[in-house]
Amino acid sequence: MPEKTNSFIPLKSVKIQDTFFTPVQRVVMDTMIPYQEKALHDEIPDIKKSHVIHNLRIAAGDEEGKYYGRVFQDSDLAKWLEAVAYSLTLKPDPELEKRADDIIDLIGRAQQPDGYLNSYFTAAEPEHRWQNLTDCHEMYCAGHMTEAAVAYYQATGKRKFLDICCRLCDHIDRRFGKGKITGIPGHEEIELALMRLYRVTGEERYLKLAMYFIDERGQDPEFFHKEAAARSWSRTDYMDKMPPSYMQNHAPVREQKTVEGHAVRCMYLLTAAADIAAVTDDKALMDACRTMWDNMVDRRMYITGGIGSTAYGEAFTVDYDLPNDTAYAETCAAVGVCFFARKMLEAEPQSRYADIMERALYNGTISGMQLDGTKFFYINQLEANPDLPSTAYGEEEYTPQRIGWYDCACCPPNLARLMTSLGTYAWSSGRNIIYSHLFIGGTAKFDEAGGVEISLETRYPWEGEVLYTVKPSEPGAEFTLAVRHPGWCDSMEIKINGEPVDEKAVIKDGYLMLQRKWQPGDRVSCRMAMPVRRVYANPMVRADVGCVALMRGPVVYAFEGIDNGEALQTLRIPRDAEIKALPYDPDLLRGVVVLEVAGRRKNEMKDLYAGAPAGEEEVTLKAIPYYAWCNRGMTHMRVWMPE
Amino acid sequence: MPEKTNSFIPLKSVKIQDTFFTPVQRVVMDTMIPYQEKALHDEIPDIKKSHVIHNLRIAAGDEEGKYYGRVFQDSDLAKWLEAVAYSLTLKPDPELEKRADDIIDLIGRAQQPDGYLNSYFTAAEPEHRWQNLTDCHEMYCAGHMTEAAVAYYQATGKRKFLDICCRLCDHIDRRFGKGKITGIPGHEEIELALMRLYRVTGEERYLKLAMYFIDERGQDPEFFHKEAAARSWSRTDYMDKMPPSYMQNHAPVREQKTVEGHAVRCMYLLTAAADIAAVTDDKALMDACRTMWDNMVDRRMYITGGIGSTAYGEAFTVDYDLPNDTAYAETCAAVGVCFFARKMLEAEPQSRYADIMERALYNGTISGMQLDGTKFFYINQLEANPDLPSTAYGEEEYTPQRIGWYDCACCPPNLARLMTSLGTYAWSSGRNIIYSHLFIGGTAKFDEAGGVEISLETRYPWEGEVLYTVKPSEPGAEFTLAVRHPGWCDSMEIKINGEPVDEKAVIKDGYLMLQRKWQPGDRVSCRMAMPVRRVYANPMVRADVGCVALMRGPVVYAFEGIDNGEALQTLRIPRDAEIKALPYDPDLLRGVVVLEVAGRRKNEMKDLYAGAPAGEEEVTLKAIPYYAWCNRGMTHMRVWMPE
Repeated sequence: MPEKTNSFIPLKSVKIQDTFFTPVQRVVMDTMIPYQEKALHDEIPDIKKSHVIHNLRIAAGDEEGKYYGRVFQDSDLAKWLEAVAYSLTLKPDPELEKRADDIIDLIGRAQQPDGYLNSYFTAAEPEHRWQNLTDCHEMYCAGHMTEAAVAYYQATGKRKFLDICCRLCDHIDRRFGKGKITGIPGHEEIELALMRLYRVTGEERYLKLAMYFIDERGQDPEFFHKEAAARSWSRTDYMDKMPPSYMQNHAPVREQKTVEGHAVRCMYLLTAAADIAAVTDDKALMDACRTMWDNMVDRRMYITGGIGSTAYGEAFTVDYDLPNDTAYAETCAAVGVCFFARKMLEAEPQSRYADIMERALYNGTISGMQLDGTKFFYINQLEANPDLPSTAYGEEEYTPQRIGWYDCACCPPNLARLMTSLGTYAWSSGRNIIYSHLFIGGTAKFDEAGGVEISLETRYPWEGEVLYTVKPSEPGAEFTLAVRHPGWCDSMEIKINGEPVDEKAVIKDGYLMLQRKWQPGDRVSCRMAMPVRRVYANPMVRADVGCVALMRGPVVYAFEGIDNGEALQTLRIPRDAEIKALPYDPDLLRGVVVLEVAGRRKNEMKDLYAGAPAGEEEVTLKAIPYYAWCNRGMTHMRVWMPE
Repeated sequence: MPEKTNSFIPLKSVKIQDTFFTPVQRVVMDTMIPYQEKALHDEIPDIKKSHVIHNLRIAAGDEEGKYYGRVFQDSDLAKWLEAVAYSLTLKPDPELEKRADDIIDLIGRAQQPDGYLNSYFTAAEPEHRWQNLTDCHEMYCAGHMTEAAVAYYQATGKRKFLDICCRLCDHIDRRFGKGKITGIPGHEEIELALMRLYRVTGEERYLKLAMYFIDERGQDPEFFHKEAAARSWSRTDYMDKMPPSYMQNHAPVREQKTVEGHAVRCMYLLTAAADIAAVTDDKALMDACRTMWDNMVDRRMYITGGIGSTAYGEAFTVDYDLPNDTAYAETCAAVGVCFFARKMLEAEPQSRYADIMERALYNGTISGMQLDGTKFFYINQLEANPDLPSTAYGEEEYTPQRIGWYDCACCPPNLARLMTSLGTYAWSSGRNIIYSHLFIGGTAKFDEAGGVEISLETRYPWEGEVLYTVKPSEPGAEFTLAVRHPGWCDSMEIKINGEPVDEKAVIKDGYLMLQRKWQPGDRVSCRMAMPVRRVYANPMVRADVGCVALMRGPVVYAFEGIDNGEALQTLRIPRDAEIKALPYDPDLLRGVVVLEVAGRRKNEMKDLYAGAPAGEEEVTLKAIPYYAWCNRGMTHMRVWMPE
């Protein structure tokens, strides 16, 4: 296995103690993971039934019964197990581990002698397995099982689940590939999972299989339609109607220039592609990843880090099409942005990747969960109009209220696994450089320079001060601490042991490269100015014309009807309006900094159309962080406000 | 039959010779009616097949075969026949009349011995007739046949079609009503048709049946769902899922306060309701009509006179929800606005009704047809973004290009019958008052005061001068000429034989009541100032915040990409921008006045989000009348422009 020049450090090497994320992790571990466990067991009344465990028991022969739900219900369990693995790393819990072990035993019983593992086909249509790669998601489920197995092995050292998934991936490897059956999954995921399996096992065949899936994609744009035509049965005729780009199959991956189709699939594909490109030093593939990253970030991403502009296909549409009210911006897609960014950062540490990862982490991912961890958004709109019937948009999902569970419950466990593994997104190292990508409080341990421990103290994102304390095992060890200079920050002062550092002299690719012989207790203090920033969208974005959004640090703000009156479009923020960041309020929305804006409200008008615009009055407006919206009942919300 | 105080005069009493509408009528008669005739006979290649004549032949037993198309294909034929009737009134055409007679003979052969007439059920499901009033549209088709029959009788004096429809309506009358079977149609239309039949035959039973349908509607909101539950077969499960308000069945009509549901149905209902209320002096019903009119006009109508904010159910949504890009604004619904307005004007002549009728006639109705009469819009958006995939809105119908025919081809023949009968919308009279509601050039004859002929000369809407020449049969006959003062007009000068009239002294309900003893050759000249007007929407309309629309006279303007560059949202019209109306250009778009605006264009920006708004440059913008948009290829279009 070639040595990577830069890798994120393992979860067990990081301890998070953070003003912002520790409460999130606590909610995930104390509430979401138990809640989701109950959901998987159908023990929560009044929410959509999951039947996940029940389905698995049927597949295992433990129970009689009928499979229920989507064909990919297994993946919900897998993502939950992955979150459990991370949770056990953060906080041992023998009872939880015992229950997870029992479920893993059950998974083992559901596995077929040839290694095949899928509740749906085993329980319901064994004769049809591997005949509908388009939308039956066998490889998608296998990928999630494999990710969970790797995480569980890393957390507990237990091999059983890992062995199950090795047999599963070996089964896939025996079936698909060059000189075998030609096939690629309709929903990418197996590719990135195989890369994780490759790393933990060192088995090259998993890397090769991942490479095969990347290489084969787009070679025959009609592959999925041909597959559908060859089938005499169908579970759905929806996916068959989708264009090849829905599955990123419109062109070979190395030739793709734009992010297309189903946004989650696209992110999972690019996460694997960036990983493979780095591991195999595949320049063409890395170029494609970079080109698609730029297309996504420069033309197809919401200010929250959300992606996917339409519910139709949960997909990207075209450049600059970023409607706010009908934004799709699926929680899973924003999670996928973090995966992709993390792999790009490993491949080439540049702060622009971390900037976007941070944007998604503080905004468009965690907006998917209620602060108490019991309700979830699948869609993350940037404008909510609960006065409209859900049918006004043609999609019931646009009802702007988080709900307890989804028929397609991909998002809640995806958030759970992201938040519990957050430690693996903050720090990377390699070749004697330690990168601090995110300002998340806690400590981290590195193998560099004979061993280093760094602690980070901050009240970020509410305040801009960050203090690093460096403890090399060997006093005077020489290495570089690379501290990210966020793209949003105009002014960052940095001092080492109180001595100012000339930022311009040490900045490279958006990181302050602090190279020296470090002594135990050396302190690096950063002070980022945190004014409220007015942000404007590119004029090509139709939805945001004439509007302004407010940010402070990485946090995007939103205006809710509950604070400002429901007719939010009658408000505006004049260009010279005074905007104040109020002191941190620990009692509001789990602790937030609120913005107070000297705005205007248009007066009421009787006529529908008139020869003069409505008059205005002065009004004090209040903005809260976007991620915390919709935690005080259903209400109107806008991120982009008329200016 | 009680005498109406005020009635629109018959088509044969009006001769239109108008700068604006004569070319439209010519296109309808020379192109649309022949084109639609061919479409009904399936003689046009490359458009959706209609099968209308074919279906009727099967029903008549003239041919073997299978019924094809929607259950309401008969209505397309009926609306075409109605347009033919008006066309024959405007311009005799013995060959066309012969072909119409042949089709009427065919309709006669398709009628069943008991009077029942409906191609679909006769040809395909005779055992199921009258079992699905919800969405099988037997009464809707019967209504359109009846309207056509009345028009054909009035045009030709031939009774055959009228007799067929009397038998048809008698069949319905024998079946439905108090003490008979309880039932109302899912799609209103029969009600207003029965009123026309009542007028032409004098038979009270048709009035009573129309009243029954109005009275019964909303008595049992679950009527349609119960009907569906009682059925063991179904043609569609779409309508059954709709709420009662979709069919205006959520409350008794007299208790309804807002326009709800399918916009065309609502207009047809209210057209009949207003007519019945006037004829029967039903104050509660008239109050309901007035309340719903106000709700529609003050809260639920596009500036173009279009109605219906969502494709889902082709329906109204809630107050002030008027999205521009996903506007439905079906052509038929704007046509229905004219029907409703006309009946309100008969009931209580107030210029506000004529203002809206005019708004629809010059904008949201005729936008439904290409200038050459061969292609049609079903949906009339106020913002077109052809760069978006049609799936971005979830509705393929939003593709912003007129097409040759529709699977559901209700709109083209509806426009044809409106435009050929336009003479019956301009003038009403009664009780010695002659109302001039619309400024359409030509002559009109009235029975008032012993007989009066009035000619109207104008280049309206391009110029604001209107000249009436009055010719009473009896010199010195005393009557009132009531000239509408349009709501859009701030300054209207009026002179009789060159002598100024004090407008304030004679205005009543928005009409200048010019009462005198008229001599042959008396001339009334009006001069309306026609500046370009900036129009602002009520701030409650989210879609139009920060935007301005331009109007001149009754004409709404639009900006097309072909004139201004495709990224229309990057343009703006500063509040103090100079706007010029250019001289009438007879060679552009069949003759229009173009507006030239000193606007601004935002500069290109690289980043998707930035800390400062884009810079701007000065640019000359060009606006064309909205109705004429999309006649020079597919292009972007906006009515509401950032200010």
